[in-house]
Amino acid sequence: MKLLSFVNPTSGEKTWGCIDGTQVFDLGKRLSAYFPDLKSAIAGNALAELTPMIPAQADFHADEIRFLPVIENPSKIFCVGMNYMEKRIEFEQTIDAPTLFVRFADTLSAHGDVVCKPDSSNEFDYEGELAVVIGKDTDNVSRDNALEHIAGYSCFMDGSVRDMQYTWFTSGKNWRKTGAFGPWMVTRDEIRDPQDLAISTWLNGNRVQNDSTHNMINSVAMLVEYISRFSPLQAGDVIITGSPGGVGKKRTPPLFMKEGDVIEVEIGNIGRLVNRVTALSNAMA
Amino acid sequence: MKLLSFVNPTSGEKTWGCIDGTQVFDLGKRLSAYFPDLKSAIAGNALAELTPMIPAQADFHADEIRFLPVIENPSKIFCVGMNYMEKRIEFEQTIDAPTLFVRFADTLSAHGDVVCKPDSSNEFDYEGELAVVIGKDTDNVSRDNALEHIAGYSCFMDGSVRDMQYTWFTSGKNWRKTGAFGPWMVTRDEIRDPQDLAISTWLNGNRVQNDSTHNMINSVAMLVEYISRFSPLQAGDVIITGSPGGVGKKRTPPLFMKEGDVIEVEIGNIGRLVNRVTALSNAMA
Repeated sequence: MKLLSFVNPTSGEKTWGCIDGTQVFDLGKRLSAYFPDLKSAIAGNALAELTPMIPAQADFHADEIRFLPVIENPSKIFCVGMNYMEKRIEFEQTIDAPTLFVRFADTLSAHGDVVCKPDSSNEFDYEGELAVVIGKDTDNVSRDNALEHIAGYSCFMDGSVRDMQYTWFTSGKNWRKTGAFGPWMVTRDEIRDPQDLAISTWLNGNRVQNDSTHNMINSVAMLVEYISRFSPLQAGDVIITGSPGGVGKKRTPPLFMKEGDVIEVEIGNIGRLVNRVTALSNAMA
Repeated sequence: MKLLSFVNPTSGEKTWGCIDGTQVFDLGKRLSAYFPDLKSAIAGNALAELTPMIPAQADFHADEIRFLPVIENPSKIFCVGMNYMEKRIEFEQTIDAPTLFVRFADTLSAHGDVVCKPDSSNEFDYEGELAVVIGKDTDNVSRDNALEHIAGYSCFMDGSVRDMQYTWFTSGKNWRKTGAFGPWMVTRDEIRDPQDLAISTWLNGNRVQNDSTHNMINSVAMLVEYISRFSPLQAGDVIITGSPGGVGKKRTPPLFMKEGDVIEVEIGNIGRLVNRVTALSNAMA
Protein backbone atom coordinates (compact mmCIF):
# COMPACT_ATOMS: atom_id res chain seq x y z
CA MET A 1 0.00 0.00 0.00
CA LYS A 2 1.17 3.51 -0.83
CA LEU A 3 0.38 5.93 2.01
CA LEU A 4 0.69 9.69 1.70
CA SER A 5 0.04 12.99 3.42
CA PHE A 6 -1.67 15.70 1.37
CA VAL A 7 -3.94 18.71 1.36
CA ASN A 8 -7.59 17.99 0.61
CA PRO A 9 -8.25 20.22 -2.44
CA THR A 10 -11.89 20.78 -1.46
CA SER A 11 -11.50 21.73 2.19
CA GLY A 12 -7.90 22.97 2.07
CA GLU A 13 -7.21 20.89 5.18
CA LYS A 14 -4.31 18.57 5.77
CA THR A 15 -5.18 14.90 5.59
CA TRP A 16 -3.65 11.53 4.71
CA GLY A 17 -4.62 8.51 2.74
CA CYS A 18 -3.52 6.03 0.12
CA ILE A 19 -2.86 6.25 -3.59
CA ASP A 20 -3.33 3.64 -6.32
CA GLY A 21 -2.07 4.83 -9.69
CA THR A 22 -3.67 8.26 -9.94
CA GLN A 23 -6.53 7.46 -7.56
CA VAL A 24 -6.26 9.10 -4.16
CA PHE A 25 -8.33 7.91 -1.21
CA ASP A 26 -8.78 10.25 1.75
CA LEU A 27 -8.47 8.09 4.86
CA GLY A 28 -7.90 11.04 7.17
CA LYS A 29 -11.44 12.19 6.44
CA ARG A 30 -12.81 8.82 7.52
CA LEU A 31 -10.50 8.19 10.47
CA SER A 32 -9.65 11.64 11.78
CA ALA A 33 -11.25 10.95 15.16
CA TYR A 34 -8.68 8.24 15.74
CA PHE A 35 -5.78 9.15 13.48
CA PRO A 36 -5.53 12.83 12.49
CA ASP A 37 -2.34 12.24 10.52
CA LEU A 38 -0.28 9.45 9.03
CA LYS A 39 2.15 9.46 11.96
CA SER A 40 -0.66 8.79 14.42
CA ALA A 41 -2.02 6.00 12.19
CA ILE A 42 1.41 4.36 12.21
CA ALA A 43 1.75 4.84 15.98
CA GLY A 44 -1.73 3.38 16.44
CA ASN A 45 -0.66 0.26 14.57
CA ALA A 46 -3.49 0.86 12.08
CA LEU A 47 -1.74 0.18 8.77
CA ALA A 48 -2.68 -3.49 8.56
CA GLU A 49 -6.35 -2.64 9.03
CA LEU A 50 -6.72 0.12 6.46
CA THR A 51 -7.78 -1.95 3.45
CA PRO A 52 -11.46 -2.26 4.47
CA MET A 53 -11.57 1.51 4.94
CA ILE A 54 -10.77 2.25 1.30
CA PRO A 55 -13.95 3.31 -0.56
CA ALA A 56 -14.88 1.92 -3.97
CA GLN A 57 -14.67 5.36 -5.50
CA ALA A 58 -11.50 7.49 -5.30
CA ASP A 59 -11.84 10.88 -3.63
CA PHE A 60 -9.36 12.72 -5.84
CA HIS A 61 -7.14 12.41 -8.87
CA ALA A 62 -3.43 12.67 -8.03
CA ASP A 63 -3.20 15.84 -10.14
CA GLU A 64 -5.72 17.58 -7.88
CA ILE A 65 -3.91 17.26 -4.59
CA ARG A 66 -0.99 19.07 -3.02
CA PHE A 67 1.40 16.55 -1.52
CA LEU A 68 2.89 17.05 1.94
CA PRO A 69 6.09 15.48 3.27
CA VAL A 70 5.21 11.82 3.92
CA ILE A 71 5.57 12.50 7.64
CA GLU A 72 5.43 16.24 8.31
CA ASN A 73 6.67 16.26 11.88
CA PRO A 74 9.01 13.36 12.72
CA SER A 75 10.43 13.65 16.25
CA LYS A 76 13.81 12.50 14.99
CA ILE A 77 15.31 12.47 11.50
CA PHE A 78 18.66 10.71 11.41
CA CYS A 79 20.69 11.00 8.22
CA VAL A 80 23.51 8.68 7.28
CA GLY A 81 26.62 9.93 5.51
CA MET A 82 29.04 7.97 3.39
CA ASN A 83 26.96 4.82 3.15
CA TYR A 84 27.60 3.74 -0.44
CA MET A 85 30.97 2.46 -1.58
CA GLU A 86 31.28 4.87 -4.51
CA LYS A 87 30.42 7.89 -2.32
CA ARG A 88 32.99 6.83 0.25
CA ILE A 89 35.67 6.70 -2.39
CA GLU A 90 34.67 10.14 -3.71
CA PHE A 91 34.91 11.65 -0.22
CA GLU A 92 37.94 9.59 0.89
CA GLN A 93 35.99 8.23 3.84
CA THR A 94 37.75 5.56 5.92
CA ILE A 95 35.66 5.21 9.08
CA ASP A 96 33.47 2.10 9.16
CA ALA A 97 30.86 3.12 11.75
CA PRO A 98 27.76 4.83 10.40
CA THR A 99 28.37 8.56 10.22
CA LEU A 100 25.21 10.27 11.37
CA PHE A 101 23.80 13.76 11.31
CA VAL A 102 20.40 15.23 12.08
CA ARG A 103 17.80 17.14 10.09
CA PHE A 104 15.04 19.09 11.77
CA ALA A 105 11.48 18.63 10.53
CA ASP A 106 11.24 22.21 9.29
CA THR A 107 13.76 21.38 6.55
CA LEU A 108 11.31 19.04 4.81
CA SER A 109 9.61 19.64 1.48
CA ALA A 110 7.10 17.51 -0.42
CA HIS A 111 6.73 15.87 -3.82
CA GLY A 112 5.80 18.52 -6.37
CA ASP A 113 6.82 21.34 -4.07
CA VAL A 114 9.98 23.42 -4.44
CA VAL A 115 13.31 22.76 -2.80
CA CYS A 116 15.10 25.96 -1.83
CA LYS A 117 18.62 26.97 -2.73
CA PRO A 118 19.96 29.44 -0.17
CA ASP A 119 20.73 32.68 -2.00
CA SER A 120 24.17 32.73 -0.38
CA SER A 121 25.11 29.28 -1.65
CA ASN A 122 26.90 28.48 -4.89
CA GLU A 123 27.11 24.78 -4.06
CA PHE A 124 23.57 23.44 -3.59
CA ASP A 125 24.03 19.74 -4.27
CA TYR A 126 21.67 16.78 -4.76
CA GLU A 127 21.67 13.43 -2.96
CA GLY A 128 19.05 10.78 -3.78
CA GLU A 129 18.38 8.49 -0.83
CA LEU A 130 16.15 5.74 0.52
CA ALA A 131 14.10 6.96 3.51
CA VAL A 132 12.97 4.53 6.19
CA VAL A 133 9.90 5.33 8.34
CA ILE A 134 9.93 3.74 11.79
CA GLY A 135 6.73 1.91 12.72
CA LYS A 136 6.81 1.50 16.49
CA ASP A 137 8.91 1.98 19.61
CA THR A 138 12.41 0.90 18.68
CA ASP A 139 14.83 0.74 21.56
CA ASN A 140 18.02 -1.30 21.43
CA VAL A 141 16.82 -3.74 18.77
CA SER A 142 19.13 -6.18 17.03
CA ARG A 143 19.59 -6.19 13.26
CA ASP A 144 17.81 -9.57 13.14
CA ASN A 145 14.53 -7.99 14.25
CA ALA A 146 15.13 -4.50 12.95
CA LEU A 147 13.03 -4.66 9.77
CA GLU A 148 9.92 -5.51 11.80
CA HIS A 149 10.20 -2.04 13.33
CA ILE A 150 9.83 -0.33 9.96
CA ALA A 151 6.47 0.96 8.71
CA GLY A 152 7.60 1.68 5.18
CA TYR A 153 10.00 3.17 2.67
CA SER A 154 10.10 6.38 0.66
CA CYS A 155 12.36 8.53 -1.51
CA PHE A 156 14.37 11.46 -0.18
CA MET A 157 16.34 14.24 -1.87
CA ASP A 158 18.85 15.39 0.71
CA GLY A 159 19.65 18.88 -0.63
CA SER A 160 23.10 19.76 0.65
CA VAL A 161 24.61 23.22 1.00
CA ARG A 162 28.20 22.15 0.44
CA ASP A 163 29.69 25.58 1.05
CA MET A 164 28.35 25.47 4.63
CA GLN A 165 29.06 21.80 5.18
CA TYR A 166 32.24 21.91 7.23
CA THR A 167 33.43 19.16 9.58
CA TRP A 168 29.93 18.80 10.99
CA PHE A 169 27.08 18.63 8.52
CA THR A 170 24.45 20.40 10.62
CA SER A 171 24.48 23.80 8.96
CA GLY A 172 24.77 22.44 5.42
CA LYS A 173 21.82 20.09 5.93
CA ASN A 174 19.32 22.18 7.85
CA TRP A 175 18.29 25.01 5.58
CA ARG A 176 14.56 25.41 5.14
CA LYS A 177 12.90 23.20 2.51
CA THR A 178 16.06 21.46 1.38
CA GLY A 179 14.96 17.90 2.14
CA ALA A 180 12.28 16.53 -0.19
CA PHE A 181 10.41 13.52 1.19
CA GLY A 182 7.91 11.55 -0.89
CA PRO A 183 5.85 11.13 -2.92
CA TRP A 184 4.50 8.48 -0.55
CA MET A 185 5.53 5.67 1.73
CA VAL A 186 5.31 2.07 0.47
CA THR A 187 4.44 -0.21 3.36
CA ARG A 188 7.03 -2.72 4.46
CA ASP A 189 5.04 -5.78 3.28
CA GLU A 190 5.52 -4.67 -0.34
CA ILE A 191 9.32 -4.30 -0.13
CA ARG A 192 10.70 -7.80 -0.12
CA ASP A 193 14.30 -6.71 0.41
CA PRO A 194 15.29 -3.08 1.11
CA GLN A 195 18.84 -3.97 0.01
CA ASP A 196 17.74 -4.81 -3.52
CA LEU A 197 16.27 -1.55 -4.84
CA ALA A 198 17.47 0.42 -7.85
CA ILE A 199 18.06 4.09 -6.94
CA SER A 200 18.61 6.92 -9.43
CA THR A 201 18.71 10.70 -9.43
CA TRP A 202 17.99 12.90 -12.46
CA LEU A 203 18.92 16.55 -12.80
CA ASN A 204 17.00 18.21 -15.64
CA GLY A 205 16.38 14.80 -17.15
CA ASN A 206 20.02 13.66 -17.05
CA ARG A 207 20.74 10.70 -14.82
CA VAL A 208 23.38 11.83 -12.31
CA GLN A 209 23.22 8.99 -9.77
CA ASN A 210 22.54 5.33 -10.52
CA ASP A 211 23.13 2.57 -8.03
CA SER A 212 21.44 -0.16 -6.00
CA THR A 213 20.72 -0.20 -2.28
CA HIS A 214 22.64 -3.48 -2.41
CA ASN A 215 25.77 -1.32 -2.31
CA MET A 216 25.05 0.27 1.07
CA ILE A 217 27.89 -0.18 3.56
CA ASN A 218 25.56 -0.31 6.56
CA SER A 219 22.27 -1.99 5.65
CA VAL A 220 18.91 -0.66 6.81
CA ALA A 221 18.81 -3.34 9.51
CA MET A 222 22.31 -2.46 10.72
CA LEU A 223 21.41 1.25 10.85
CA VAL A 224 18.30 0.60 12.95
CA GLU A 225 20.39 -1.53 15.31
CA TYR A 226 23.18 1.04 15.57
CA ILE A 227 20.96 4.08 16.11
CA SER A 228 18.51 2.42 18.49
CA ARG A 229 21.44 1.38 20.69
CA PHE A 230 21.89 4.99 21.83
CA SER A 231 18.70 6.80 20.77
CA PRO A 232 15.20 5.34 21.16
CA LEU A 233 13.07 5.71 18.03
CA GLN A 234 9.32 5.93 17.76
CA ALA A 235 6.62 5.69 15.11
CA GLY A 236 7.11 8.30 12.42
CA ASP A 237 10.81 8.83 13.03
CA VAL A 238 12.85 8.72 9.85
CA ILE A 239 16.25 7.39 8.86
CA ILE A 240 17.71 8.73 5.59
CA THR A 241 20.10 6.01 4.56
CA GLY A 242 22.74 7.84 2.54
CA SER A 243 23.46 8.71 -1.05
CA PRO A 244 25.21 6.82 -3.85
CA GLY A 245 28.17 8.37 -5.64
CA GLY A 246 27.81 10.90 -8.42
CA VAL A 247 27.00 13.98 -6.35
CA GLY A 248 27.75 17.35 -7.94
CA LYS A 249 30.53 18.35 -5.55
CA LYS A 250 32.81 15.55 -6.71
CA ARG A 251 32.28 15.95 -10.46
CA THR A 252 34.74 17.58 -12.83
CA PRO A 253 33.58 20.23 -13.36
CA PRO A 254 31.26 20.35 -10.31
CA LEU A 255 27.53 20.25 -11.04
CA PHE A 256 25.27 22.12 -8.63
CA MET A 257 21.55 22.85 -8.61
CA LYS A 258 20.35 26.30 -9.63
CA GLU A 259 17.03 28.07 -9.80
CA GLY A 260 14.60 26.48 -12.24
CA ASP A 261 16.30 23.07 -12.25
CA VAL A 262 14.20 19.94 -11.87
CA ILE A 263 15.57 17.27 -9.53
CA GLU A 264 14.10 13.77 -9.38
CA VAL A 265 14.81 10.73 -7.22
CA GLU A 266 13.43 7.34 -8.27
CA ILE A 267 13.62 4.14 -6.25
CA GLY A 268 12.43 0.80 -7.63
CA ASN A 269 9.13 -0.48 -6.18
CA ILE A 270 8.59 2.89 -4.48
CA GLY A 271 8.18 5.72 -6.97
CA ARG A 272 9.61 8.97 -8.25
CA LEU A 273 10.00 12.16 -6.24
CA VAL A 274 9.99 15.33 -8.37
CA ASN A 275 10.98 18.82 -7.23
CA ARG A 276 11.78 22.14 -8.79
CA VAL A 277 14.61 24.25 -7.41
CA THR A 278 13.93 27.84 -6.43
CA ALA A 279 15.82 30.51 -4.54
CA LEU A 280 14.97 30.59 -0.85
CA SER A 281 14.22 34.33 -1.07
CA ASN A 282 11.61 33.64 -3.76
CA ALA A 283 9.96 30.90 -1.72
CA MET A 284 9.77 33.16 1.34
CA ALA A 285 8.48 36.18 -0.65
CA MET B 1 15.33 35.97 38.36
CA LYS B 2 16.22 32.26 38.52
CA LEU B 3 13.57 30.14 36.78
CA LEU B 4 13.41 26.38 37.03
CA SER B 5 11.38 23.30 36.17
CA PHE B 6 10.78 20.78 38.95
CA VAL B 7 8.50 18.16 40.42
CA ASN B 8 6.11 19.39 43.10
CA PRO B 9 6.98 17.14 46.09
CA THR B 10 3.42 17.18 47.41
CA SER B 11 1.48 16.38 44.25
CA GLY B 12 4.24 14.59 42.33
CA GLU B 13 3.35 16.70 39.30
CA LYS B 14 5.68 18.57 37.04
CA THR B 15 5.66 22.32 37.49
CA TRP B 16 7.90 25.37 37.17
CA GLY B 17 8.74 28.42 39.20
CA CYS B 18 11.52 30.55 40.58
CA ILE B 19 14.14 30.05 43.25
CA ASP B 20 15.74 32.56 45.60
CA GLY B 21 18.50 31.02 47.68
CA THR B 22 16.85 27.87 48.98
CA GLN B 23 13.30 29.21 48.64
CA VAL B 24 11.30 27.73 45.80
CA PHE B 25 8.12 29.37 44.53
CA ASP B 26 5.70 27.28 42.48
CA LEU B 27 4.49 29.52 39.65
CA GLY B 28 3.15 26.65 37.57
CA LYS B 29 0.54 26.00 40.27
CA ARG B 30 -0.65 29.61 40.04
CA LEU B 31 -0.40 30.03 36.25
CA SER B 32 -1.01 26.55 34.85
CA ALA B 33 -4.13 27.64 32.99
CA TYR B 34 -1.98 29.95 30.90
CA PHE B 35 1.51 28.48 31.12
CA PRO B 36 1.71 24.77 31.96
CA ASP B 37 5.51 24.75 31.72
CA LEU B 38 8.45 27.13 31.61
CA LYS B 39 8.71 26.89 27.83
CA SER B 40 5.14 28.11 27.40
CA ALA B 41 5.77 30.96 29.87
CA ILE B 42 8.76 32.04 27.80
CA ALA B 43 6.78 31.71 24.56
CA GLY B 44 3.95 33.72 26.12
CA ASN B 45 6.38 36.53 26.87
CA ALA B 46 5.44 36.25 30.56
CA LEU B 47 8.85 36.48 32.22
CA ALA B 48 8.79 40.25 32.77
CA GLU B 49 5.45 39.99 34.53
CA LEU B 50 6.21 37.21 36.97
CA THR B 51 7.42 39.25 39.94
CA PRO B 52 3.92 40.18 41.21
CA MET B 53 2.98 36.50 41.06
CA ILE B 54 5.61 35.44 43.61
CA PRO B 55 3.96 34.80 47.00
CA ALA B 56 5.40 36.15 50.25
CA GLN B 57 5.93 32.63 51.55
CA ALA B 58 7.99 30.07 49.66
CA ASP B 59 6.24 26.85 48.68
CA PHE B 60 9.22 24.53 49.13
CA HIS B 61 12.80 24.35 50.30
CA ALA B 62 15.25 23.58 47.52
CA ASP B 63 16.16 20.30 49.23
CA GLU B 64 12.57 19.08 48.94
CA ILE B 65 12.17 19.30 45.19
CA ARG B 66 13.33 17.12 42.31
CA PHE B 67 14.78 19.32 39.59
CA LEU B 68 13.89 18.78 35.94
CA PRO B 69 15.96 19.90 32.93
CA VAL B 70 15.43 23.69 32.73
CA ILE B 71 13.47 23.13 29.52
CA GLU B 72 12.38 19.50 29.23
CA ASN B 73 11.33 19.49 25.60
CA PRO B 74 13.16 22.03 23.44
CA SER B 75 12.23 21.70 19.76
CA LYS B 76 15.85 22.24 18.80
CA ILE B 77 19.06 21.86 20.75
CA PHE B 78 22.08 23.09 18.81
CA CYS B 79 25.50 22.33 20.26
CA VAL B 80 28.67 24.12 19.28
CA GLY B 81 31.99 22.33 18.99
CA MET B 82 35.46 23.79 19.23
CA ASN B 83 34.41 27.21 20.46
CA TYR B 84 37.16 28.01 22.97
CA MET B 85 40.73 28.69 21.90
CA GLU B 86 42.29 26.12 24.24
CA LYS B 87 39.89 23.37 23.10
CA ARG B 88 40.62 24.16 19.45
CA ILE B 89 44.32 23.73 20.06
CA GLU B 90 43.74 20.43 21.88
CA PHE B 91 41.68 19.07 18.97
CA GLU B 92 43.79 20.69 16.22
CA GLN B 93 40.73 22.48 14.85
CA THR B 94 41.37 24.95 12.02
CA ILE B 95 37.91 25.75 10.63
CA ASP B 96 36.60 29.17 11.68
CA ALA B 97 32.85 28.70 11.11
CA PRO B 98 30.86 27.41 14.09
CA THR B 99 30.89 23.63 14.08
CA LEU B 100 27.42 22.49 15.04
CA PHE B 101 25.79 19.28 16.09
CA VAL B 102 22.39 18.38 17.48
CA ARG B 103 21.16 16.80 20.71
CA PHE B 104 17.67 15.39 21.02
CA ALA B 105 15.60 16.34 24.06
CA ASP B 106 15.59 12.77 25.37
CA THR B 107 19.32 13.07 26.12
CA LEU B 108 18.72 15.67 28.84
CA SER B 109 19.17 15.16 32.56
CA ALA B 110 18.57 17.56 35.45
CA HIS B 111 20.49 19.06 38.36
CA GLY B 112 20.81 16.47 41.10
CA ASP B 113 19.86 13.64 38.78
CA VAL B 114 22.31 11.09 37.37
CA VAL B 115 24.13 11.31 34.07
CA CYS B 116 24.51 7.93 32.41
CA LYS B 117 27.70 6.35 31.17
CA PRO B 118 26.92 3.82 28.43
CA ASP B 119 28.10 0.41 29.62
CA SER B 120 29.92 -0.11 26.33
CA SER B 121 31.93 3.11 26.65
CA ASN B 122 35.35 3.47 28.23
CA GLU B 123 35.61 7.11 27.24
CA PHE B 124 32.72 9.02 28.83
CA ASP B 125 34.04 12.57 28.95
CA TYR B 126 32.88 15.82 30.57
CA GLU B 127 32.37 19.22 28.92
CA GLY B 128 31.15 22.19 30.97
CA GLU B 129 29.25 24.71 28.85
CA LEU B 130 27.13 27.83 28.90
CA ALA B 131 23.57 27.09 27.71
CA VAL B 132 21.48 29.80 26.06
CA VAL B 133 17.67 29.59 26.11
CA ILE B 134 15.94 31.32 23.20
CA GLY B 135 13.12 33.68 24.21
CA LYS B 136 11.07 34.26 21.07
CA ASP B 137 10.88 33.62 17.33
CA THR B 138 14.39 34.08 16.01
CA ASP B 139 14.70 34.01 12.25
CA ASN B 140 17.65 35.52 10.41
CA VAL B 141 18.59 38.00 13.16
CA SER B 142 21.83 39.96 13.14
CA ARG B 143 24.37 39.72 15.95
CA ASP B 144 23.55 43.31 16.91
CA ASN B 145 20.02 42.32 17.96
CA ALA B 146 20.73 38.72 18.86
CA LEU B 147 20.90 39.03 22.65
CA GLU B 148 17.37 40.46 22.74
CA HIS B 149 16.17 37.08 21.50
CA ILE B 150 17.55 35.27 24.56
CA ALA B 151 15.37 34.44 27.58
CA GLY B 152 18.20 33.41 29.86
CA TYR B 153 21.33 31.42 30.58
CA SER B 154 22.08 28.14 32.32
CA CYS B 155 24.81 25.57 32.88
CA PHE B 156 25.21 22.42 30.77
CA MET B 157 27.35 19.29 31.16
CA ASP B 158 27.69 17.90 27.64
CA GLY B 159 28.56 14.28 28.45
CA SER B 160 30.46 12.93 25.45
CA VAL B 161 30.92 9.31 24.49
CA ARG B 162 34.31 9.77 22.83
CA ASP B 163 34.61 6.18 21.64
CA MET B 164 31.49 6.69 19.48
CA GLN B 165 32.32 10.23 18.43
CA TYR B 166 33.67 9.71 14.95
CA THR B 167 33.70 12.33 12.19
CA TRP B 168 30.14 13.32 13.04
CA PHE B 169 29.30 13.80 16.70
CA THR B 170 25.70 12.59 16.58
CA SER B 171 26.16 9.14 18.09
CA GLY B 172 28.64 10.27 20.75
CA LYS B 173 26.35 13.07 21.91
CA ASN B 174 22.90 11.48 21.89
CA TRP B 175 22.95 8.73 24.47
CA ARG B 176 20.14 8.89 27.00
CA LYS B 177 20.67 11.20 29.99
CA THR B 178 24.12 12.38 29.01
CA GLY B 179 23.36 16.11 28.84
CA ALA B 180 22.76 17.75 32.23
CA PHE B 181 20.91 21.08 32.04
CA GLY B 182 20.42 23.30 35.07
CA PRO B 183 19.99 23.92 37.91
CA TRP B 184 17.95 26.87 36.62
CA MET B 185 17.92 29.61 34.03
CA VAL B 186 19.01 33.11 35.02
CA THR B 187 17.00 35.65 33.05
CA ARG B 188 18.85 37.80 30.55
CA ASP B 189 18.40 41.05 32.50
CA GLU B 190 20.69 39.69 35.23
CA ILE B 191 23.56 38.75 32.90
CA ARG B 192 25.19 42.01 31.89
CA ASP B 193 27.62 40.39 29.44
CA PRO B 194 27.45 36.69 28.50
CA GLN B 195 31.06 36.96 27.29
CA ASP B 196 32.35 37.80 30.76
CA LEU B 197 31.42 34.75 32.85
CA ALA B 198 33.82 32.46 34.71
CA ILE B 199 33.20 28.80 33.80
CA SER B 200 34.64 25.81 35.65
CA THR B 201 34.12 22.06 35.78
CA TRP B 202 34.96 19.85 38.77
CA LEU B 203 35.34 16.08 38.69
CA ASN B 204 35.17 14.61 42.20
CA GLY B 205 36.09 17.99 43.63
CA ASN B 206 39.11 18.57 41.40
CA ARG B 207 38.87 21.49 39.00
CA VAL B 208 39.37 20.07 35.49
CA GLN B 209 38.21 23.03 33.37
CA ASN B 210 38.68 26.71 34.22
CA ASP B 211 38.14 29.46 31.70
CA SER B 212 36.03 32.52 30.89
CA THR B 213 33.31 32.86 28.27
CA HIS B 214 35.43 35.79 27.10
CA ASN B 215 37.57 33.19 25.31
CA MET B 216 34.79 31.89 23.05
CA ILE B 217 35.70 32.02 19.37
CA ASN B 218 32.12 32.65 18.25
CA SER B 219 30.27 34.77 20.80
CA VAL B 220 26.69 34.03 21.86
CA ALA B 221 25.47 36.83 19.59
CA MET B 222 27.44 35.48 16.63
CA LEU B 223 26.07 31.96 17.23
CA VAL B 224 22.47 33.19 17.27
CA GLU B 225 23.11 35.09 14.04
CA TYR B 226 24.80 32.13 12.33
CA ILE B 227 22.24 29.51 13.33
CA SER B 228 19.15 31.64 12.71
CA ARG B 229 20.40 32.31 9.19
CA PHE B 230 19.56 28.75 8.18
CA SER B 231 17.32 27.39 10.97
CA PRO B 232 14.52 29.40 12.59
CA LEU B 233 14.56 29.20 16.39
CA GLN B 234 11.66 29.56 18.79
CA ALA B 235 11.06 30.08 22.50
CA GLY B 236 12.61 27.31 24.55
CA ASP B 237 15.14 26.25 21.93
CA VAL B 238 18.63 25.86 23.34
CA ILE B 239 22.14 26.60 22.12
CA ILE B 240 24.97 24.89 24.01
CA THR B 241 27.91 27.15 23.33
CA GLY B 242 30.92 24.84 23.55
CA SER B 243 33.43 23.71 26.12
CA PRO B 244 36.74 25.16 27.29
CA GLY B 245 39.91 23.08 27.12
CA GLY B 246 40.84 20.51 29.72
CA VAL B 247 38.53 17.68 28.65
CA GLY B 248 39.53 14.17 29.68
CA LYS B 249 40.21 12.87 26.18
CA LYS B 250 43.14 15.22 25.67
CA ARG B 251 44.84 14.72 29.05
CA THR B 252 47.91 12.61 29.65
CA PRO B 253 46.87 10.15 30.88
CA PRO B 254 43.24 10.53 29.73
CA LEU B 255 40.67 11.19 32.46
CA PHE B 256 37.18 9.81 31.89
CA MET B 257 34.06 9.66 34.07
CA LYS B 258 33.16 6.39 35.77
CA GLU B 259 30.32 5.15 37.90
CA GLY B 260 30.04 6.99 41.23
CA ASP B 261 31.92 10.08 40.09
CA VAL B 262 30.50 13.52 40.82
CA ILE B 263 30.67 16.05 37.99
CA GLU B 264 29.93 19.74 38.55
CA VAL B 265 29.74 22.74 36.22
CA GLU B 266 29.74 26.24 37.70
CA ILE B 267 29.24 29.47 35.80
CA GLY B 268 29.60 32.88 37.46
CA ASN B 269 26.31 34.71 38.11
CA ILE B 270 24.37 31.56 37.19
CA GLY B 271 25.04 28.71 39.60
CA ARG B 272 26.43 25.23 39.99
CA LEU B 273 25.08 22.11 38.27
CA VAL B 274 25.81 18.88 40.16
CA ASN B 275 25.39 15.33 38.83
CA ARG B 276 26.45 11.86 39.80
CA VAL B 277 27.59 9.40 37.16
CA THR B 278 25.93 6.02 36.93
CA ALA B 279 25.96 3.18 34.43
CA LEU B 280 23.12 3.42 31.91
CA SER B 281 22.07 -0.17 32.69
CA ASN B 282 21.63 0.79 36.36
CA ALA B 283 19.56 3.84 35.51
CA MET B 284 17.28 1.79 33.24
CA ALA B 285 16.90 -1.06 35.75
